[in-house]
Amino acid sequence: MPTRAELGVWRSFLRAHARLTRIMEAELIAEQRLSLAAYDVLVQLSEAPQYRLRMTELADAVLLSRSGVTRLVDRLERAGLVLRERADGDGRGVVAVLTSSGLERLRTASGTHLAGVVRHFAEVFTNSELEAFGRACELLASSSPEEVL
Amino acid sequence: MPTRAELGVWRSFLRAHARLTRIMEAELIAEQRLSLAAYDVLVQLSEAPQYRLRMTELADAVLLSRSGVTRLVDRLERAGLVLRERADGDGRGVVAVLTSSGLERLRTASGTHLAGVVRHFAEVFTNSELEAFGRACELLASSSPEEVL
Repeated sequence: MPTRAELGVWRSFLRAHARLTRIMEAELIAEQRLSLAAYDVLVQLSEAPQYRLRMTELADAVLLSRSGVTRLVDRLERAGLVLRERADGDGRGVVAVLTSSGLERLRTASGTHLAGVVRHFAEVFTNSELEAFGRACELLASSSPEEVL
Repeated sequence: MPTRAELGVWRSFLRAHARLTRIMEAELIAEQRLSLAAYDVLVQLSEAPQYRLRMTELADAVLLSRSGVTRLVDRLERAGLVLRERADGDGRGVVAVLTSSGLERLRTASGTHLAGVVRHFAEVFTNSELEAFGRACELLASSSPEEVL
């Protein structure tokens, strides 16, 4: 069982994430009419080779909820920001592809998002605090006594 | 715009959160047949006065996705873990109430969850690293130049 202090830090971590993502989402919706999950999908596709990812790869790559990815891609497709194609070769599976209008929309939206990363996140820390926080997050993001997922 | 280093730390933070919540959810589902979002709802209700929260308060209190809270409470109600009542007094609004079987289910499930908090989170750090990480998260969870939400 965790100590009271350990559990307190865990909860602070969850609250920090909830608060920041809610603020960033509110700004993104207000200024860009884009949810943070939609922004996340556009970012992942923009960084993939040829702007393409299999739907299963996309679900693994997103940093927010992967449960709603299929419906989210439906909406992005209707808005012309993403299109779906059959995967080459094996004829099975579907890939999501970022369109040029999706890339343009992402570039515009990144102005809002990146300003938020500075204002709500980076500026809260001194340089050395930010470095230490980055090392701690890297540790959490990569190491685990056993690999579960 | 953030520097490359600042953006890198922000992304590590998101990856750390995504990875930890996915691992914790996989363990909770495997051992307790409970999603992390459902666990989160049960925790918030268990800590509320008389185990009751208005649906709007519950949506604000949860640390994970608040978008699916209504449907989640539907499922928890069908499972007998939560019930809905009209809010006292004004006759408007609905409160969610934790049932005794919900409290029992939470107590059992917390064994899995709290062991995961130790194994995947607390044990990764030394004591002083954990303290510093906690202070950083508190800063992110509470301070912001302007209050947006």
